Amino acid sequence: MKTDKILLGHGSGGKLSHDLIEKLFVKYFSNPVLDSQTDAAVLDVQGKDISFTTDSFVVDPVFFPGGNIGKLAVCGTVNDLAVSGAKPMYLTSAFIIEEGFSMSELEEIVKTMAEEAKKAGVKIVTGDTKVVDKGKCDKVFINTAGIGVIEDKYKHIGSGINIKAGDKIIVNGTIGDHGMAIMSERNELNISSPIKSDCACLNEPIAIALKTSDSVKFIRDATRGGLATVLSELVDRKEFGIDIDEAQVPLNDSVRGMCELLGFDPFYVANEGKFVMIVGADDAEKVVEELRKHEYAKDTAIIGEITSEHVGKSIVQTSIGGQRILDMLSGEQLPRIC
Amino acid sequence: MKTDKILLGHGSGGKLSHDLIEKLFVKYFSNPVLDSQTDAAVLDVQGKDISFTTDSFVVDPVFFPGGNIGKLAVCGTVNDLAVSGAKPMYLTSAFIIEEGFSMSELEEIVKTMAEEAKKAGVKIVTGDTKVVDKGKCDKVFINTAGIGVIEDKYKHIGSGINIKAGDKIIVNGTIGDHGMAIMSERNELNISSPIKSDCACLNEPIAIALKTSDSVKFIRDATRGGLATVLSELVDRKEFGIDIDEAQVPLNDSVRGMCELLGFDPFYVANEGKFVMIVGADDAEKVVEELRKHEYAKDTAIIGEITSEHVGKSIVQTSIGGQRILDMLSGEQLPRIC
Repeated sequence: MKTDKILLGHGSGGKLSHDLIEKLFVKYFSNPVLDSQTDAAVLDVQGKDISFTTDSFVVDPVFFPGGNIGKLAVCGTVNDLAVSGAKPMYLTSAFIIEEGFSMSELEEIVKTMAEEAKKAGVKIVTGDTKVVDKGKCDKVFINTAGIGVIEDKYKHIGSGINIKAGDKIIVNGTIGDHGMAIMSERNELNISSPIKSDCACLNEPIAIALKTSDSVKFIRDATRGGLATVLSELVDRKEFGIDIDEAQVPLNDSVRGMCELLGFDPFYVANEGKFVMIVGADDAEKVVEELRKHEYAKDTAIIGEITSEHVGKSIVQTSIGGQRILDMLSGEQLPRIC
Repeated sequence: MKTDKILLGHGSGGKLSHDLIEKLFVKYFSNPVLDSQTDAAVLDVQGKDISFTTDSFVVDPVFFPGGNIGKLAVCGTVNDLAVSGAKPMYLTSAFIIEEGFSMSELEEIVKTMAEEAKKAGVKIVTGDTKVVDKGKCDKVFINTAGIGVIEDKYKHIGSGINIKAGDKIIVNGTIGDHGMAIMSERNELNISSPIKSDCACLNEPIAIALKTSDSVKFIRDATRGGLATVLSELVDRKEFGIDIDEAQVPLNDSVRGMCELLGFDPFYVANEGKFVMIVGADDAEKVVEELRKHEYAKDTAIIGEITSEHVGKSIVQTSIGGQRILDMLSGEQLPRIC
């Protein structure tokens, strides 16, 4: 789709986002690190490998069941570092605030950020505050950048270069919770629902998996664009395919129900506390067992495997016996989900 | 001033900003690095000193004489690193874009960022794009975070701990250009004016000064809140005072004229390509001479000195023979200047 205007879909994390990144950011900023397009850049800083990432958060509403924009900002950046194989260390926090925003709500957000940072073992070391006139932004936007250190033996995890047929695909719990929690909070729907965002810092469960097995080959957090987007990105231009068994994908009943009601596909709904992990077949069960001991990974499951068939495609065996191909999200499913 | 709402002044870089930082961010995020409140945090990452900084840019208008929001974003973050004594290396770029923003204007901004990054010798290694519905932000906001490496011998520069009476205060050119360039572009004024923003990456002239003298004791870029805010921050809770000779402060005639016309004090008007540098008295002339060879420092001048008198105060000897105390900006002079 050609357009001379920015569309909501350009921020979806799906196909339009990828086009924009390729045709604009990669075109002009091109360098080997950027071009690799991992969630976090891996940099050589005087002989040390440093992982570096950034994310802006514009979620609407600012407060939602299971968290707020501040929790999202800390967890999102911690997770981008952790899935690259790095140990998250330091964060920045930059606020753009709408004139007239409540000081006590801002305090609540800042307090949550401090709590989450402490839990995740990271320090917020510098920041910035801008205020724009009323009506020129929506309440508050937060950017968090983060740095971490990455050991040599984990440098393959961001790109997944060691993946091969037979490897197992693991998800650390139910999918779609964050997206549907936000959806249920949007005023226009006014659905009373028990769905809570899964927003959480995943560096601890990831560290557990890495400690359990030397054959963790890839990790990616399934945020905007959901599980489907991670899987379709993963097979893109690769020499393997993916088989997913829909029946094995953990899904809360309430999320399933709401998705059916509203016509959403939970595979495309955003998560903020879920990762996709590829592990060698021999170690997969052991990793699942250890992960399930952690509070953010109780429902961890093997949902499929890497295959040498249907190369470049991610295929779901549906519960009713059919097949469907997972493609990148092509438009915008839920604007301002994070 | 107590308030339960966020005011434009909280983003001014002046007194309200400082109060907000103290009472909210330092209160909750407190750690030794953050508490030092330098422009860039200096971090120990596995035995290496890394400088880390972030800034969000919300300038209005997005394009202005002498630059655009993208140039501002790259230069602002490069400068925060450089004034901390670090060699800027890597940047992130995170965009929040309003639905409907022009793709060609976005391309122009990205192109400028790439050019400035190349000139400054830094790489943009990772990024993020969010799009919000029309009316929920104003055209485009950009966050850039940056990291650099800092040599041991320059670690005092961010805090200025070595400053003593007799040291000279240097500015690398005319003040107030950026603020007045933005002002002249704001639609409601519609002033036809030759004023161009001074927006520039200052890492080169700073490297020249550091190479010229071992007695560079402090550098800070004079952005929001202008020269006055840097100087009043510098003497705050310190055992010295500052004497400034107004007649020595470089000022473009057109900026002077516009400030008089509109009732602005150029000492408080924002710059985006100016630093305040404190240098030992013996080396000051030599540093000025070398700096003047650089295109971004042609009008470098010694504008005053550190004094053991009027401790904690920054005093200007005015051109007409009077004196005035420079205090932090107390409200908001020009919203969305950067």
